[in-house]
Amino acid sequence: MKKLLIASTSTVHGSEYLVYILPTLADFFKEAGTILFIPYARPSGKTYDEYTAIAREAFATIDKKVIGIHEYKNPKEAIAQAEAIFTGGGNTFELVHQLYKNEILSALTTAVESGTPYMGTSAGSNICGVTMMNTNDMPIVYPPSFTTLGFIPFNINAHYLDPNPDSTHMGETRETRIKEYHVFNETPVLGLREGSWLEVNGASIVLRGNHTARLFQQNKDAVELATNTEISEYF
Amino acid sequence: MKKLLIASTSTVHGSEYLVYILPTLADFFKEAGTILFIPYARPSGKTYDEYTAIAREAFATIDKKVIGIHEYKNPKEAIAQAEAIFTGGGNTFELVHQLYKNEILSALTTAVESGTPYMGTSAGSNICGVTMMNTNDMPIVYPPSFTTLGFIPFNINAHYLDPNPDSTHMGETRETRIKEYHVFNETPVLGLREGSWLEVNGASIVLRGNHTARLFQQNKDAVELATNTEISEYF
Repeated sequence: MKKLLIASTSTVHGSEYLVYILPTLADFFKEAGTILFIPYARPSGKTYDEYTAIAREAFATIDKKVIGIHEYKNPKEAIAQAEAIFTGGGNTFELVHQLYKNEILSALTTAVESGTPYMGTSAGSNICGVTMMNTNDMPIVYPPSFTTLGFIPFNINAHYLDPNPDSTHMGETRETRIKEYHVFNETPVLGLREGSWLEVNGASIVLRGNHTARLFQQNKDAVELATNTEISEYF
Repeated sequence: MKKLLIASTSTVHGSEYLVYILPTLADFFKEAGTILFIPYARPSGKTYDEYTAIAREAFATIDKKVIGIHEYKNPKEAIAQAEAIFTGGGNTFELVHQLYKNEILSALTTAVESGTPYMGTSAGSNICGVTMMNTNDMPIVYPPSFTTLGFIPFNINAHYLDPNPDSTHMGETRETRIKEYHVFNETPVLGLREGSWLEVNGASIVLRGNHTARLFQQNKDAVELATNTEISEYF
């Protein structure tokens, strides 16, 4: 049975890496001693080693080991044998580029479908959607496709931000961007605010955390979903 | 001789479409009676007709006619015969997708190299760079390439925004995103604030408007360039 945690962000304001969600992770990963970390998204251009060290330090506080996928000779086998998987945030274009380059999309699908717990934050959550077309990231690398893992039947907009009524900036709001997306695409989009996450168990998808989430569907008004909502009912 | 106006935005806060730059446009387009408008970027999903009507209304105030490229049977011929060209803002991914789909990149290059005045705002400015890799837009459409027109030897980040020291949002700042870009790419990037534009005459590239612009080069500290700076000296 699929078992996923899909988080908007790794870090909330005023707190350290993953700290806001560690109690949840201790439970989610309770049967795993070691977590396979996928550092491909390279936030701020960090090396795989640097990024893995950060994840390792956070997970040590809940007595989990972390090994980076780049420490294995064969990334597909690393995924097949993993007790649990965590994909960190960073740049979604580079992450997806590396998923294709290392040919691990089907290995990830097989692992997740067979019950390996998967957690993503930010870019690592975007790839759980049908496509990466609602990332906020800059297209610094050209991936061979925008199609991602489709673990859920909609796309994620991580770090969702409400329009700022005081802004004098003329760039598009997040809502405007997602509405433009729906001129060209049907797949629904969930705007997940920082501090929110989705808990997926098989067909069940529940919103967790302290915030509402904003659901965008083609040709419909956007709706706010309360925390603890069973989201699968909307699809 | 190349003759370009590359503007960060069409509209500044508290003003109407193009109004802040109309005196400059009256001079820039002084030898053109009719301007060919490229509405492919479709801001807010506007139709080509709706978007062209907006451009038409603005240019009517300086006695210019506007015809949308979609009103011609053959877009390549429309470009070859144009007295002047204006590409409006919107979504850069969709704009670039349509440039490739309509096979007009080389027609645009030929026209611009032979002296047809070209003006871009926002997405229409991004495509003047070497690639579209520094757009802020959402990847709502998968274009066949991120390579763009290369009228200037660097990329544009339109609507450039300084980091907000009061923000509690954990998404990356613009500067962080551009630095991530330079982990993977060499091409310099110019962050062009709203209300700034570049005036290109042959090999000369001068910053205009009331703001400084921020130049990012690989393995160097970012620098602020004053308005009226001859930017070509930096490359």
